[in-house]
Amino acid sequence: MREKPAKFEQLADQMQKQLQAGIWQPGEKLPSLREKAAHSGLSLMTVLHAYQLLESQGWIMSRPQSGYYAAPRIASAAMLPAGGDAVQLTEQVDVNDFIFDVLRASRSPAVVPFGSAFPDPRLFPQRQLTRSLAQVARRMQPESAVDSLPPGNEQLRKQIAQRYALQGIAVSPDEIVITSGALESLNLCLQWLTRPGDYVVIESPAFYGALQAIERLQLKAITIAADPHTGIDLAALEQALQQYPIRACWLMTNFHNPLGYTLSWQKKQQLAALLRTYQVALIEDDVYGELYSGTHRPLPVKALDSDGRVLHCASFSKSLVAGFRVGWVAAGQWAEGIQRLQLMSTLSTSAPMQLAIADYLATSSYDSHLRRLRRTLEQRKYRLYQAMKAHFPPEVEIYYADGGYFLWLGLPQGGDSMALYQQALAQGISLAPGRMFTTDDRCDRYFRINTSFEWQRKTEQAVIVLAELLRHAVTQARSRPG
Amino acid sequence: MREKPAKFEQLADQMQKQLQAGIWQPGEKLPSLREKAAHSGLSLMTVLHAYQLLESQGWIMSRPQSGYYAAPRIASAAMLPAGGDAVQLTEQVDVNDFIFDVLRASRSPAVVPFGSAFPDPRLFPQRQLTRSLAQVARRMQPESAVDSLPPGNEQLRKQIAQRYALQGIAVSPDEIVITSGALESLNLCLQWLTRPGDYVVIESPAFYGALQAIERLQLKAITIAADPHTGIDLAALEQALQQYPIRACWLMTNFHNPLGYTLSWQKKQQLAALLRTYQVALIEDDVYGELYSGTHRPLPVKALDSDGRVLHCASFSKSLVAGFRVGWVAAGQWAEGIQRLQLMSTLSTSAPMQLAIADYLATSSYDSHLRRLRRTLEQRKYRLYQAMKAHFPPEVEIYYADGGYFLWLGLPQGGDSMALYQQALAQGISLAPGRMFTTDDRCDRYFRINTSFEWQRKTEQAVIVLAELLRHAVTQARSRPG
Repeated sequence: MREKPAKFEQLADQMQKQLQAGIWQPGEKLPSLREKAAHSGLSLMTVLHAYQLLESQGWIMSRPQSGYYAAPRIASAAMLPAGGDAVQLTEQVDVNDFIFDVLRASRSPAVVPFGSAFPDPRLFPQRQLTRSLAQVARRMQPESAVDSLPPGNEQLRKQIAQRYALQGIAVSPDEIVITSGALESLNLCLQWLTRPGDYVVIESPAFYGALQAIERLQLKAITIAADPHTGIDLAALEQALQQYPIRACWLMTNFHNPLGYTLSWQKKQQLAALLRTYQVALIEDDVYGELYSGTHRPLPVKALDSDGRVLHCASFSKSLVAGFRVGWVAAGQWAEGIQRLQLMSTLSTSAPMQLAIADYLATSSYDSHLRRLRRTLEQRKYRLYQAMKAHFPPEVEIYYADGGYFLWLGLPQGGDSMALYQQALAQGISLAPGRMFTTDDRCDRYFRINTSFEWQRKTEQAVIVLAELLRHAVTQARSRPG
Repeated sequence: MREKPAKFEQLADQMQKQLQAGIWQPGEKLPSLREKAAHSGLSLMTVLHAYQLLESQGWIMSRPQSGYYAAPRIASAAMLPAGGDAVQLTEQVDVNDFIFDVLRASRSPAVVPFGSAFPDPRLFPQRQLTRSLAQVARRMQPESAVDSLPPGNEQLRKQIAQRYALQGIAVSPDEIVITSGALESLNLCLQWLTRPGDYVVIESPAFYGALQAIERLQLKAITIAADPHTGIDLAALEQALQQYPIRACWLMTNFHNPLGYTLSWQKKQQLAALLRTYQVALIEDDVYGELYSGTHRPLPVKALDSDGRVLHCASFSKSLVAGFRVGWVAAGQWAEGIQRLQLMSTLSTSAPMQLAIADYLATSSYDSHLRRLRRTLEQRKYRLYQAMKAHFPPEVEIYYADGGYFLWLGLPQGGDSMALYQQALAQGISLAPGRMFTTDDRCDRYFRINTSFEWQRKTEQAVIVLAELLRHAVTQARSRPG
């Protein structure tokens, strides 16, 4: 089902790698369109499209009458705290109650949902899903409840296995367990692999669901500091693996929430090697993997899993439909255990929802939907990014990721994103403060912005209001010592 | 929505209470139809219907040419072990793996599903549910995912609250959390109320889901011996409450699984008083409550809950549709906590499933469906009971409950229902051995039979095969010492 990327996409991909490798330093001028066309043997239009794509992804900038320049990249070191705390142990995780307030605040239709975790539901193929649901209603058999018990509907598991196969990943349908969204699969995996008091590795910052699960299961968190461009420090991870009897790592390898990074292929290989060496399980949260803005879906570490040690968790909630609550885990050697645990916890994922997704996938329109979705998400993210760049004070850092629909922003040292959150909410704007994603104060000056919703007049107004609040916050941060 | 019971039902209800009170001893002759009609002022036909109902419920027996007699009741003491272990502490619950084998075995369409936990799905109103699902498909909005987040769809919570109100129970929609079946609500409640190492009261025997949850959460189980007629011993419960710092009781008060008993109203009142005195939470599993065969739905202890200490868990899975996975908890003072825990565990129950149930309930056909369902379940249970009575050796005890669709059977002392289970399975018949429901060997001679499936030729054959195996098992039990 995956098409060969177009020429302009191949070129953009190649240039992106060169930009990442530092071949053009931030601010440096790129070859002109004509020069590039001459060198590459590609048409002028192909080069133009590639440059436009790279611009939309935030890699390069155009200056009228002048040409294209490498975009400024924020210093990677910004997120890594000085000193030896790239690895940190948190004996007892205690996630603040305000996570629930933040989630609730972004639900209100009156609020500009920059704090929301969900993509705009209007991006999903409502009509086709409706048709699939109606089909299921017509065809549903009394026995479908039994057929949908763990590991889940067989047709759906086969379809998911086929999608892995298209990526070149060998996953048997028998290894797949259908769950109530990826959240259930992530939680089942952690619960199956650990006992209270066990050590678990997560990133800092991390998806708050991981912090909540660790708190609930009374585990000890080993946090590995993560950088918004390069991700976690694997030397720090190895140090942690040597120092602590770690039961599992729970990591996002593609379009990390909230930072946005994707681990490089080389780092993924190193990570897979570490898992083998230290005989540790990886719970791989890959819920944003389909939402890439480059030419390829980035491979998960699961692609390198030779001994069934990676539990790859994903879902249709971010890419097709949120409310159906259908996700899965390719659970490797633990597939049987995860099935049993699900049978004890929620019994099974609802039968008509499994059948409706299977019906939709059988129509083969998923991939063309995904292409549209990726394009729209990228356009919306880029538009909001441009507006924020234009209005926000230059001291505010903005991290632009190659996929997903979040931006990660930072106030200068000493800034307080919790205060900003409160002030913005009072003006009808939600955002997700950094404190939601950590066990400490490491991210107290950062915040996450959801860019997936349609641009409206109130979006622009919200950016202007936020800009005003940020100017105030920057001034305050400057006046604080340290 | 609840109708006034018919006169014959009122009479049967009254006589059932008299039989329970021992006014007629087992084997004693009841007044003739004419005598009873004369004394009660009711018509002969009304009395006949009442007697037939009592017979179908196993309270009385007719002897041709002779009249009606009180049915033999198995001695209540049979289940209560001798000595002081009416209360037992299990420090570490370790449920045997074969539960999963048993559940899997009963799924195969080739096997006679006496071991199944589910009611026959063909008893559910397929056509109307299909219509509701199609309605939802037509009307679904992109925002429905957000509206269905915990505590769940507002209309559905109101409809459930109205059904409580019809029973005279005051439950606010705000107290209700919609979950993926009652299994999720039961698990969320236990998880919210406890920390590893805490003490929890359950019955012995108990629903295996409770044992599994206790094992998974590393809790200590205080088991209270239960009698198939009268339920748990409240003196033993009070003793346990005095002796241990108990965090919660997880109990079934109506149509207990697997024993079948319903706690008397007096015992429910005493239980509610104990909860108040000892400040303990009750997780009340009431999933079979709608499946009564008498004239009224038995009230739960929730009806007596003045301080929000009862978390009443129920669902539509046993009474309307299994595969939708829609249940709820009326969580009293813990409603907010349960919502949060759900938000962290599975995020929410699927939106279309919540909407479809709400649509179905709005059609007002639920109560007439329930009346049909109760009648059919009672007829099927009675038919299988009669067949088993006719074929099984007299040494096999059969406990007949006033609701639900299970029979609880016992081999004589020394009998081994695990061996019976293996032998029956080899012949294509599943059953649920007593060991599934305990932490010890207390129920090793008992087993549970699902009576909800339609009578077929193979059902009768299965009864005859089982009878042969039972004769063998009875002989073996006799030959064993003690």
